[in-house]
Amino acid sequence: MKIARVRVTPVAVCNPPLLNSGGLHSPYTVRSIIEVEADNGLVGLGETFADRMVLDRLNSVRESLVGLSPFDVNALRRITQSGTPPSGAEAFRFMPGSWNGNPTDAKIFGAFEAAFLDLQARCLGIPLCELLGGAVRQQVPFSAYLFFKYSAQYVRHVDPEYAEYDPWGEVLTVDQLVAEAQRMIDLYGFRSIKVKAGVLTPQEDVACIKALRKRFPAHPIRLDTNAAWSQDTARRMAELLDGDLEYYEDPTPGLGGMADLHLATGLPMATNMVVTDFDEFRRNLAVNGVQVILGDHHYWGGLRATQQLASMCEMFDIELSMHSNCHLGISLMTMTHVAAAIPNLTYACDTHYPWFTEDLLQGGRVPIRDGSVAVQNLPGMGVDLDPKALAEMHQQYLRCGLSGRDDAAQMRKFKPDWERKKPRF
Amino acid sequence: MKIARVRVTPVAVCNPPLLNSGGLHSPYTVRSIIEVEADNGLVGLGETFADRMVLDRLNSVRESLVGLSPFDVNALRRITQSGTPPSGAEAFRFMPGSWNGNPTDAKIFGAFEAAFLDLQARCLGIPLCELLGGAVRQQVPFSAYLFFKYSAQYVRHVDPEYAEYDPWGEVLTVDQLVAEAQRMIDLYGFRSIKVKAGVLTPQEDVACIKALRKRFPAHPIRLDTNAAWSQDTARRMAELLDGDLEYYEDPTPGLGGMADLHLATGLPMATNMVVTDFDEFRRNLAVNGVQVILGDHHYWGGLRATQQLASMCEMFDIELSMHSNCHLGISLMTMTHVAAAIPNLTYACDTHYPWFTEDLLQGGRVPIRDGSVAVQNLPGMGVDLDPKALAEMHQQYLRCGLSGRDDAAQMRKFKPDWERKKPRF
Ligand SMILES: [Mg+2]
Ligand SMILES: [Mg+2]
Repeated sequence: MKIARVRVTPVAVCNPPLLNSGGLHSPYTVRSIIEVEADNGLVGLGETFADRMVLDRLNSVRESLVGLSPFDVNALRRITQSGTPPSGAEAFRFMPGSWNGNPTDAKIFGAFEAAFLDLQARCLGIPLCELLGGAVRQQVPFSAYLFFKYSAQYVRHVDPEYAEYDPWGEVLTVDQLVAEAQRMIDLYGFRSIKVKAGVLTPQEDVACIKALRKRFPAHPIRLDTNAAWSQDTARRMAELLDGDLEYYEDPTPGLGGMADLHLATGLPMATNMVVTDFDEFRRNLAVNGVQVILGDHHYWGGLRATQQLASMCEMFDIELSMHSNCHLGISLMTMTHVAAAIPNLTYACDTHYPWFTEDLLQGGRVPIRDGSVAVQNLPGMGVDLDPKALAEMHQQYLRCGLSGRDDAAQMRKFKPDWERKKPRF
Repeated sequence: MKIARVRVTPVAVCNPPLLNSGGLHSPYTVRSIIEVEADNGLVGLGETFADRMVLDRLNSVRESLVGLSPFDVNALRRITQSGTPPSGAEAFRFMPGSWNGNPTDAKIFGAFEAAFLDLQARCLGIPLCELLGGAVRQQVPFSAYLFFKYSAQYVRHVDPEYAEYDPWGEVLTVDQLVAEAQRMIDLYGFRSIKVKAGVLTPQEDVACIKALRKRFPAHPIRLDTNAAWSQDTARRMAELLDGDLEYYEDPTPGLGGMADLHLATGLPMATNMVVTDFDEFRRNLAVNGVQVILGDHHYWGGLRATQQLASMCEMFDIELSMHSNCHLGISLMTMTHVAAAIPNLTYACDTHYPWFTEDLLQGGRVPIRDGSVAVQNLPGMGVDLDPKALAEMHQQYLRCGLSGRDDAAQMRKFKPDWERKKPRF
């Protein structure tokens, strides 16, 4: 069996005006949809970033994959290495994830590798999670991912590209955040909560956590400021939050800062910012900066690399959780299958999925029930593309003119003097 | 697809009177042959140790595998964990290779995992190396594995169980070892040489290396004393051998001894004795004891664990080679396929295969040409069992009465006062 065709289609999905310490989400998120079609007609699916550099690399690699076996991920690896590869045995000498220090390589390889593995599973007629070693859980739990946000009504005065439909409204206060949590938990049954903080003042963030803790006493809560707090602020807030947090995600910048903070507070530090490849994993071992790593197959170099990360976390007594970027259903199902097959991925995964209303799958959006996504006994990731929806979201991509993400620039449409600061508080 | 039957058949293979620093090989080596049969009639093959404890565990696990999908290695992992597994999520929390400190677990899991993966590949109709990520080399190089040995004629006076056929004769001198090397290289085309040393005096071993170096100037040579030398002896011999060795394999006991020796001599230290699981891998990072690890899927926990070891070696700048125990063609082909799929396994692998004359494969023994074993474009590992040969070698197992390996006891049949000493010199 050989790969006959590879398609890469950039799409845009409507994005609500979510806030984070890095700025404001644009009216659209762009994503690349990957289809790897074998000569037997089966198609493996992948989804990844669509920033200009990534999209260009995906397209430049695409044609070279035709004729490969979808099992030959070593060939895929060779092809997706950038630069002039060294000759002979040296050509293969690099590490998944560190990728000779080139983070784009990991993204390009990972995007196709996930689609290759999905295609392998479809050819076998087995679920993707089974190919990955077998499901240790049929239901993969996700967390309620809470954001502060503007209302659509407010933002559309400045940027009419934002969708009018906004059932969530403005969320800029403690009460509004608790209402958002309630709505999200009512809708999807989530059993843990993640708060994207660093937008309001640290004192307000702490008040939010206290209010959520009171309303949802059985829900573990994690706080993620994306490094918006100084070490001193983070330490003072940790004292106030004593016992309230499941983990403290990127409260303060840098591996050293996190290490000091962990020493001072004893709280488990989590990250998707300072340990993002195997090189940084190695550096973290020396300083014990973080005790929880959020994996993400989109940038760790695919599904096998994510499983390798999991094994290494087990070996070095590090906990494993899962990061989410804005994504559609293909990414959600890929995350679900790899999470299902990783024994030590015992935290609920993050997902932005509830913040979107569109998708491009046959049969509509992926259901989230009891806070979990189920792996189905269907070949591969168990979902298929709806060609009409794909075409429409591609048109939306062409119309919107976005080719990347710049939350800070978007924020300055509303606050012209706004600047990203790490730390801000 | 489900597993319908699992067979474990102990066999014995005639073993020549090879010497090492731990004693003398017995007239027979015992091995377990594993057949995992799916309900579609296809059979995945595995081969491992047949020491009593291993064989008992293989048999006690065997029946529990019936009904599993051959893709469900996570279930296999759960089943092969010894002791009372902790409940819930904790049940899955252990590391491939370290296996909660139980080395038998890694052997049992690895033996079945290799057969599961072979069965997966056969069901797919693709070579095992393709399932493992694709061959980065079609020919896997092995080294000429030289042993000092008694002649069959000599040993049969004491233990008539040794086979009469012995084309190699006595090898106890420099000239005899060079002749052995010449014969082995003429027969199989090996392009690198491994000497199992620590039998003669260190000075004689050095003389052997010098003579081999002269006769085979283009062949990299490695020396393995199985920790028979003191640190002082090993350091003095390293000075004499300056520039002659590819690597120095377990010259002296212990990780600390190897670390000091590496510091003192600059020679790369290799091991299959002090880094044999992921726990020891972690310990080695702290002291830089060895710079080359000899992987072995039989005790590292199977093929995926071996690939994981390879990735970790890449990440931590450790070189990777491959260890051999006495083995038949199934182990040889499994080693060949996993080696073919590991980019950074750039050393020639070790193999005892030329020392045996029997095998239990259809079509006879696996050919070694130009020092390499080829992966064929056939399903799985590309070889099948000959039921008649299997039955005969099982009868040989029952007749010989051996249920493990005790080189020291065998040696004492010839030298009653002989004792294993680490170090001896
Ligand atoms: Mg984060
Ligand atoms: Mg050795």
